[in-house]
Amino acid sequence: MPDLKSNIEKSNQDTVDILLQGQPVWVRDALAKDVVPGLTDNTIMHAGPPIEWERMASAMKKAILGAVVFEGLAEGLEEAEQAVVSDDIQLAPCHQYAVVGGMTGVTSPSMYLHVVKNEAFGNEAYCMPHEGGSFKGLAWGTNDEETLTNVRWMQEELSPVLDAAVQSAGGVNVRQLVARALQMGDECHSRCTAGTSLLTRQLAPHIIRTDFPADVLDRVFTFLHTNDIFFLHIIMAAGRAIVDPAKNIPYSTIVTTLARNGVDFGIKVSSLGEEWFTAPSPKIKTAFFSSKWDDSVATPDMGDSSITETIGLGGQVTASAVAHEHLLGGDFSTSLEKTRNAYETTYAEHSEWLVPNLDFRGTPLGIDIRKVLSKGIEPTVHTATAHVQGGFIGGGEAYVPMETFELAMRAFAEKYQIDQDGNNSAAT
Amino acid sequence: MPDLKSNIEKSNQDTVDILLQGQPVWVRDALAKDVVPGLTDNTIMHAGPPIEWERMASAMKKAILGAVVFEGLAEGLEEAEQAVVSDDIQLAPCHQYAVVGGMTGVTSPSMYLHVVKNEAFGNEAYCMPHEGGSFKGLAWGTNDEETLTNVRWMQEELSPVLDAAVQSAGGVNVRQLVARALQMGDECHSRCTAGTSLLTRQLAPHIIRTDFPADVLDRVFTFLHTNDIFFLHIIMAAGRAIVDPAKNIPYSTIVTTLARNGVDFGIKVSSLGEEWFTAPSPKIKTAFFSSKWDDSVATPDMGDSSITETIGLGGQVTASAVAHEHLLGGDFSTSLEKTRNAYETTYAEHSEWLVPNLDFRGTPLGIDIRKVLSKGIEPTVHTATAHVQGGFIGGGEAYVPMETFELAMRAFAEKYQIDQDGNNSAAT
Repeated sequence: MPDLKSNIEKSNQDTVDILLQGQPVWVRDALAKDVVPGLTDNTIMHAGPPIEWERMASAMKKAILGAVVFEGLAEGLEEAEQAVVSDDIQLAPCHQYAVVGGMTGVTSPSMYLHVVKNEAFGNEAYCMPHEGGSFKGLAWGTNDEETLTNVRWMQEELSPVLDAAVQSAGGVNVRQLVARALQMGDECHSRCTAGTSLLTRQLAPHIIRTDFPADVLDRVFTFLHTNDIFFLHIIMAAGRAIVDPAKNIPYSTIVTTLARNGVDFGIKVSSLGEEWFTAPSPKIKTAFFSSKWDDSVATPDMGDSSITETIGLGGQVTASAVAHEHLLGGDFSTSLEKTRNAYETTYAEHSEWLVPNLDFRGTPLGIDIRKVLSKGIEPTVHTATAHVQGGFIGGGEAYVPMETFELAMRAFAEKYQIDQDGNNSAAT
Repeated sequence: MPDLKSNIEKSNQDTVDILLQGQPVWVRDALAKDVVPGLTDNTIMHAGPPIEWERMASAMKKAILGAVVFEGLAEGLEEAEQAVVSDDIQLAPCHQYAVVGGMTGVTSPSMYLHVVKNEAFGNEAYCMPHEGGSFKGLAWGTNDEETLTNVRWMQEELSPVLDAAVQSAGGVNVRQLVARALQMGDECHSRCTAGTSLLTRQLAPHIIRTDFPADVLDRVFTFLHTNDIFFLHIIMAAGRAIVDPAKNIPYSTIVTTLARNGVDFGIKVSSLGEEWFTAPSPKIKTAFFSSKWDDSVATPDMGDSSITETIGLGGQVTASAVAHEHLLGGDFSTSLEKTRNAYETTYAEHSEWLVPNLDFRGTPLGIDIRKVLSKGIEPTVHTATAHVQGGFIGGGEAYVPMETFELAMRAFAEKYQIDQDGNNSAAT
């Protein structure tokens, strides 16, 4: 009978093999209600682990109310709040479905989502397109008329054009684009300038081939031009599509989810299925866009975008994006150091996502809760910062709370009946 | 009376100040004969220093004959050769005009050129658009029907669309794009993927606003998508526009031109005006695209693209493009080392073109012939490699021959009557 340690090693290898085999392809944009299994018409999804309305971050609450109005489930924001508190509206984490959402992550049935298919396993995952490089957005927790007008425009023009273009292109290989972007200063979370630019260039002929009027295409191209981070939400859907087949592998200690709702930071671990292990969401080390903002008006770490760190991008591969590190007051050596730390806590390295500044070493892949705990290194996540009352006010980094790993390890020990000496008492 | 050394120091500072003040803006595409002052209808321009027909590289000869046919100055290639040897066709270096050309550099009056204006000084410079990511092209020394058909397409569709788009955009700030591209893995000579992608994304809304048919725009976008290095020829025109005002500054020992014709490598030095100092063109250290090619079929270093090294890009800033260095068998540390060498031979550093991998130190600017000679370091240039019979077969690097600097220094000494001890005998 194999001992516990070799069970874990084998399972972890299986888990990272599945992550490595992932072949995420952006195949279309489609309405959430048409593609997300089990999504009811009165459900509003949000980022991070489950949370009750009363405990939610203000920015997330505001975005939810905006989405209720957008869905036509209430006339205005006040009526929307009544509907939410009276439970006429169902709130659920995006992660309860095969969905991820940026920042507040607020996503509702009538919104178009990017559909990314993992061609290696057949599963799909979904993410609402990024709302653009503006202060306002449901993702940032604003809900005024300007915010909703932009979201409506995305449904009417942006996503139909993108859908037609992506289908004309026969899909967009996200794995390949990430590989190229990593060699061009992107860490593929907070910095996606190269990926967005490569993607726009690749899609441009197909955007032309759609039969939408020129003024519509003009607005779509202008949106893509003014939104450096557009590619992120496609990577997020890809990340979710990559990790889902790697869930529920017995004995695996590899992290399959990192997500925050602005109040709690939650993680999931492969062998522990869909169970959340949560701790208070950390303060973000933010580079604010204006001196009028500081930590006192910053929502703690929020959003499902840390799915990118789950697959070895973002804060895990700071070495690829020295410009991002520079923004936070770091330098070349600290950017390398952060990625070296990531290798300490991960089980494997990617075979195709390579880091030029580390002589084309593979990106760190598969956060192993054992290694995080034994090394005492909290994984770095990159993130944006939302104003407590809504609005995009900066970008920065945070660290996954050690407590989430401690809780996960306790559950793992319980599940496999491990005693204090690390032996599997059930197996002996 | 200031001594020689302080004259030189002041002049060199003036020279690099002019380079630094350069504000190159891509303002339009236009026909060579409409914009290049003094260009006659039967002139074909080529890369590098002047060279007689008999001594020319075969690839350059072939491109010239192709251009003669393209211009309608001969019915076929044989008739074209007769016209050239009988002096019915005038051959002249691009550099004799305010033009630069990639590889063979062959450029003729009926070709559209990128027009880049140095807004700080009002001068313009020109470069033919890159012919695309194909084995064939006049730039690579092919001249068959496929080559000429592509060049004709560029005149009929590509440049008219680009011209309209660039004018709609009110010009494209090349200085700014280079600054961004340098933070995204480009060295802005052999690697321009980021620049081309950023540029395409920026121009896309304006390309839509032109009133060309959708099938034309489709071909233009497809061309931009399949041509990573498209931006290079705009940077080349920018380089020429930047250096021209820095010429003819008395006492300046700063290099204003690096150019090769495949047989000779020539340099110019500010205080020595338009005089060429030449030495045999070096062999290129090439990463060939196929094992069927090797050094025995490679044309020596060729093209005006080394204008980019003159302004501190390309081989001078290898540290920005580790992927390029990797292609040549180097690694991260050698890429840094090459740029550190460049600092040894340059007079200044750029204030806005920064290198993330060197903690945002400015790019090395202003090759000083004194420093090259005293340090014994031949500046690195990046380059593509043409087959001796024409065709694009690889990319690599070469070194500016020390002999060119020795000849320039000798002329400088003569001009300023410097004796062997470095004293200005005229001034004493």
